[in-house]
Amino acid sequence: MPIYIHEIETPIPVVDLDRLAANLDTMAAYCAVHGLALRPHVKTHKAPRIAADQMRLGAVGLTCATPRELEVMSEVSDDLLLAHPPIGWPKIHRVVGISREVRLAVAVDTVEAATRLARVARDVGRFVGVRVEVDLGMRRMGAPTPEAALDLVRHVAGLTGLRYEGILFYPGHIRQPVREQDAALAQLRADLGRVLEMLADDDLEPQVVSGGSTPLAWRIHEVDGVTEVRPGTYVFNDRTTAEIGACAWEDCALTVLATVISTAVPGQAVIDAGSKALGREPLAGPDSAAKGYGALLDRPEVTVARMSEEHGILDLSRTSWVPEVGDVVRVVPNHVCVVVHLNDLVYGVRGEVVETHWPVTARGRETEWPAVAR
Amino acid sequence: MPIYIHEIETPIPVVDLDRLAANLDTMAAYCAVHGLALRPHVKTHKAPRIAADQMRLGAVGLTCATPRELEVMSEVSDDLLLAHPPIGWPKIHRVVGISREVRLAVAVDTVEAATRLARVARDVGRFVGVRVEVDLGMRRMGAPTPEAALDLVRHVAGLTGLRYEGILFYPGHIRQPVREQDAALAQLRADLGRVLEMLADDDLEPQVVSGGSTPLAWRIHEVDGVTEVRPGTYVFNDRTTAEIGACAWEDCALTVLATVISTAVPGQAVIDAGSKALGREPLAGPDSAAKGYGALLDRPEVTVARMSEEHGILDLSRTSWVPEVGDVVRVVPNHVCVVVHLNDLVYGVRGEVVETHWPVTARGRETEWPAVAR
Repeated sequence: MPIYIHEIETPIPVVDLDRLAANLDTMAAYCAVHGLALRPHVKTHKAPRIAADQMRLGAVGLTCATPRELEVMSEVSDDLLLAHPPIGWPKIHRVVGISREVRLAVAVDTVEAATRLARVARDVGRFVGVRVEVDLGMRRMGAPTPEAALDLVRHVAGLTGLRYEGILFYPGHIRQPVREQDAALAQLRADLGRVLEMLADDDLEPQVVSGGSTPLAWRIHEVDGVTEVRPGTYVFNDRTTAEIGACAWEDCALTVLATVISTAVPGQAVIDAGSKALGREPLAGPDSAAKGYGALLDRPEVTVARMSEEHGILDLSRTSWVPEVGDVVRVVPNHVCVVVHLNDLVYGVRGEVVETHWPVTARGRETEWPAVAR
Repeated sequence: MPIYIHEIETPIPVVDLDRLAANLDTMAAYCAVHGLALRPHVKTHKAPRIAADQMRLGAVGLTCATPRELEVMSEVSDDLLLAHPPIGWPKIHRVVGISREVRLAVAVDTVEAATRLARVARDVGRFVGVRVEVDLGMRRMGAPTPEAALDLVRHVAGLTGLRYEGILFYPGHIRQPVREQDAALAQLRADLGRVLEMLADDDLEPQVVSGGSTPLAWRIHEVDGVTEVRPGTYVFNDRTTAEIGACAWEDCALTVLATVISTAVPGQAVIDAGSKALGREPLAGPDSAAKGYGALLDRPEVTVARMSEEHGILDLSRTSWVPEVGDVVRVVPNHVCVVVHLNDLVYGVRGEVVETHWPVTARGRETEWPAVAR
């Protein structure tokens, strides 16, 4: 006897399996058409079963942000990139200590990060690949100028224990709608071009130039020199991705299933999904506070206007729908990666039927106690 | 050989055990002095060991928000309140199915919630206590007028399977500094007074009048009629609690330990704690965006100005401190309850020494598959 979506305990993330499959296919096809290596970021799903699908569809490897993600994903792929410099000694030891069957690469953006990584790599007798992170406008991480990038690449290339593989950037500052990215893409092309030229002049051509993000995914092939992309969000998409036109509303595969628990206060309805289920992530752009923290899949005009930890307050001002206590709704979150991180379990549905479930295995920071390396 | 705080893997929440003990003592003493029953909300710590300390210090029982919290806390206390109406059938069955050794009470604010709860209580042959939630200004949940409250109390009192215990309110709208709460408290007194008067006129005096929150904790005794309080945050406190003067900065017991991972982009430093470690919770009040998402314990002028999922960008504009890659910092989060919910493990420290650790046992929504009740 099938289990229907309205029968399960809320709040809980549910993934539309058909939409997930379509999203995986679309990105794989885009990369294949444009000759880009696809190294999806697992931070979005943190689930080995989805990572395995990504590998089956042609991904060259996986991108991770934490040691836990590396450890879990080493069961699925033998080619992993940690796109986040490990700095503390316990973390470096944990990262470099990953299964020897994995071809491991790490992003670094400072001499200190490279030097520490090389020290541990030598200590344990292992070569670790390095991608030097360059800042192409986000102003978060990365060598801030072509000169700084060249200096750091030279340093990395000279360190025993490390294997210089190339460069990496994250264009997270490009969040405008896909059709309005022309100027930003032109700037990116110019900035990346200068870095590549300088490296070539010094005989330090990168084997890999890794860029990409879901918002920029469909146009990154316009940036000459990029060989690899690392999108994460595309597997599920979310309200932000739809808002900038990097997916259609119908491509949003993950929703948070919630129940209307109160209509006591006139003019609103309360659901049992609050900030501990949805995350307090704003939409980008002006007036973001007014846009709420999520919207109903079937009624996008109904938004989650306010939240407590376990309460979401629906804004009913733009709908004729009159919710009743007990109604079950599906909320498209603003930022899906945070929603997955808040949960241990995700349900897979096809239509209205709950077909499967899987653990969010790579969430958390599970480690041994005490997590000390001396 | 002791383990020192700078030796453990980051990001991770660390709790100052002396501050935690002092916070527990202070609230217990306040309630004892004013003759208030203390029923702390476990949503903040989600840890049996802290709940056990609360019970040992005289709490009458515990407040929970989720079925998982109820289940875990039933090992620690035999008197539990679910301050959140269970509406979906799987959740109601799970809640009512908790150990028979527990005296269970549930907050409800609609006829539908009461009726559903009574049906399951009768089905399984158990009496469930009910506190009728009234809205005294927050506009989130609760009967919105004294008349509505009276109607709902009458309905509850007439339902077989339920035991009418009293009323409950959450004064979450009172978030101004403690010294500026006079007018809000006067309003609360008046509003609560009207509800109590109406119930008395109908011979439905509440046995319990449950109110309270950490921001209002130290003045709730000024509200006549309140018999019980349900503060949660006070065990750890946070930047919000300190900002409104409901605790001193030195009372913040939980910090997120983080490592400086990059100083590559001039004028800033990046730590390895981002929105997946700190939560994206704003400080209340005007200009909250400029106040950031946390501040350093030892340098409160240094705030976490921006975040990605695994990156926090420190605003260095108000400090002469020059952070270096590898420096370890302690971040006081804006909202500690969300931080705990993001983690599976918390470390306990005394001074600079890591003394213990404990699991955040009641986080998550662990359930059986499929979580269906028909």
